[in-house]
Amino acid sequence: MSDADAAALDAADPLAAFRSEFDLPEGVIYLDGNSLGPLPHATRSRLAEVVSVEWGQSLIRGWNDHDWIGAPRRVGALLAPLIGAEADEVICADSTSANIYKLAVAAMQDRPDRKVVLSEPGDFPTDLYMLEGAVRSLGGGRRLELRPSDEIEAALGPEVALLVLCHAHYKTARIRDMARLTAAAHAAGALVLWDLSHSAGVLEVDLNGSGADLAVGCGYKYLNGGPGAPAFLFVARRHQDSLVSPLSGWMGHAAPFEFPDAYAPARGIGRFACGTPPILGLSALECGVEIAARAGKGALRAKAVALTDLFIRHIEAGPAGSELALVTPRDAALRGGHVSWRHPDGYAIVQAMIARGVIGDFRAPDIARFGFSPLPLTFAEVARAAEILGEVVSTRAYDDPRYRQRSAVT
Amino acid sequence: MSDADAAALDAADPLAAFRSEFDLPEGVIYLDGNSLGPLPHATRSRLAEVVSVEWGQSLIRGWNDHDWIGAPRRVGALLAPLIGAEADEVICADSTSANIYKLAVAAMQDRPDRKVVLSEPGDFPTDLYMLEGAVRSLGGGRRLELRPSDEIEAALGPEVALLVLCHAHYKTARIRDMARLTAAAHAAGALVLWDLSHSAGVLEVDLNGSGADLAVGCGYKYLNGGPGAPAFLFVARRHQDSLVSPLSGWMGHAAPFEFPDAYAPARGIGRFACGTPPILGLSALECGVEIAARAGKGALRAKAVALTDLFIRHIEAGPAGSELALVTPRDAALRGGHVSWRHPDGYAIVQAMIARGVIGDFRAPDIARFGFSPLPLTFAEVARAAEILGEVVSTRAYDDPRYRQRSAVT
Repeated sequence: MSDADAAALDAADPLAAFRSEFDLPEGVIYLDGNSLGPLPHATRSRLAEVVSVEWGQSLIRGWNDHDWIGAPRRVGALLAPLIGAEADEVICADSTSANIYKLAVAAMQDRPDRKVVLSEPGDFPTDLYMLEGAVRSLGGGRRLELRPSDEIEAALGPEVALLVLCHAHYKTARIRDMARLTAAAHAAGALVLWDLSHSAGVLEVDLNGSGADLAVGCGYKYLNGGPGAPAFLFVARRHQDSLVSPLSGWMGHAAPFEFPDAYAPARGIGRFACGTPPILGLSALECGVEIAARAGKGALRAKAVALTDLFIRHIEAGPAGSELALVTPRDAALRGGHVSWRHPDGYAIVQAMIARGVIGDFRAPDIARFGFSPLPLTFAEVARAAEILGEVVSTRAYDDPRYRQRSAVT
Repeated sequence: MSDADAAALDAADPLAAFRSEFDLPEGVIYLDGNSLGPLPHATRSRLAEVVSVEWGQSLIRGWNDHDWIGAPRRVGALLAPLIGAEADEVICADSTSANIYKLAVAAMQDRPDRKVVLSEPGDFPTDLYMLEGAVRSLGGGRRLELRPSDEIEAALGPEVALLVLCHAHYKTARIRDMARLTAAAHAAGALVLWDLSHSAGVLEVDLNGSGADLAVGCGYKYLNGGPGAPAFLFVARRHQDSLVSPLSGWMGHAAPFEFPDAYAPARGIGRFACGTPPILGLSALECGVEIAARAGKGALRAKAVALTDLFIRHIEAGPAGSELALVTPRDAALRGGHVSWRHPDGYAIVQAMIARGVIGDFRAPDIARFGFSPLPLTFAEVARAAEILGEVVSTRAYDDPRYRQRSAVT
């Protein structure tokens, strides 16, 4: 793989023009857009307008005049095509964690005779923690059961109310077969809740095409919504009026501004909203989602495959190929938007890379993880990052006490 | 009350200089800071910095380098003196609604033999809705009982796990006696959860001086944190390690970046965090809270009393005095930061006032509500607003079809 090869890929990249829509710091190759996506220029000016004009000048009138009240559904509708949903099946609200709780409790209450929520050990921790909280809240013998990936289908018995899985795994990037697992769950009488945090904006997610029931996902990764952006949730139309959110706040009420004492859920996806919508966060998320929606999920997926292919081939052919163990599937059909390598000095390797301007991240205990956000990245950057990683590993440049100091957030 | 009297009050106002820290639209007298506080100048520049520099340039490194990860506790600590709490008893996270759920479920699970959550009809609706959701989640015979204000103490029996009340009522502005009701609940073996949404930033709240257990409140009213700002919650130190949040997300984990499968709550207030903190919203909230904390709760309270006094006296001595029924306590000791008048044409009156540049709001079925945010308002504005209200009501200027058109948000 020569520089000319990467240049040729960039020249042929149908998404190349999107790079100029992002702010990127000088001298940095950013391979962590799967953890926090970069800043779109549009977000900078949009937020300035929301703050100075909408909040500053319209004040309370902003709820009507700038349709702040419609933001959760509007941004949800914009996002829907990226995940194979209809516009009225998605809403942006709360955090991924809170949304998991809402949907898991609602699903369990919908199937009261089934006591088990099934998931997998090593799935994204907050998903498992929220499910622990959900079964602990509901009690009545309900429990969370964790089964290894290859035992999930066999574990789908008559006791299972809900299967909860991450679509693309946060460490390995392995993609689960959404259609097949959903069908298996349905055959056993269970619902499925998919976490799309590492999928939305980088994979060709097709919720309705897969028969999916429920989903949640993150706004600040490949959707570039900003640090701690609001999350989203999906409820298939057929379930919207039978499921009731335990976080039954006024924004999900059928008539919130009549201020009645008793809760009455809105019809449709709106009932899964809870508190007052976070307008600054939603405005930023809207800009990020708009860009991804304009690129389209097919093009995003194709570029992510090409970028991750290039990175893997480059590393494996280079001087670090024998020292780094690929934990991400080599088969692109099974691989999400990031690439992870196992190495006993994974933490120090990531720090040494950061010191050289290549930002990836570390996932305990030994994984160096690199994300390939399709819109802001060039093939030339990815080739250069692979060269630097090869050098850092093969020369043991990571073997330096500076690179072993741990931060609060890794 | 002459213009000279109002001018004299402004001249003597120790908080007068704070007005210049806010953006306010030309030609508007803003009496709705209790619904959405106005924009501080500092927020405008701070958000531009957070977006362009912290997110745009630091990217994922912002979690450590700009202490994003510490924001929920840092803003909580800044807010603590305004509500009579210690710095390690407050955290900013999620919405008021979600925080009510967290604390109500945690309190009920802490007192499993007691089946009742007690509250009052007509309290802020989302509080009641979330309590409905909480008892529905826990099941086991738990129920929400609503009793009129004057029956609350008598209803505090051995079945009550938790009393939930708004400290200042959203319609009437009546302040409840926090110390007395807390003591009564404790005598009956119950905990109390206070909603400070209409108190924080305008009243001399003294949670610890009142023996309070739990509290929540809103960031976008008198704390001027922006539309849909993150909310806060308070847990007295003595309860922090025995209560467990049902929204047991990774940000409340003892070791979130070790990514273990099992939930283990952090010690202290941190366990009541859930998902990834919303950095844009928290940064805006921090600016608003900083200003209020600098003013101090005593000065805020004193000015709110003086502003509301002036408004009530002016209206009652003016041409509308006999047509508007005051529902807010005339006794300042019982009155929060807003003033509400009942009138069969309340909705149209509020619209006619808005058309004349005086922004208040309407609360169904017949309440015209005006809020007196102490920092941005002058006594001259309040006197002028009272004159306009007198005029609108006495001349029936509100009696116009334009003023009867309903908006999505009132």
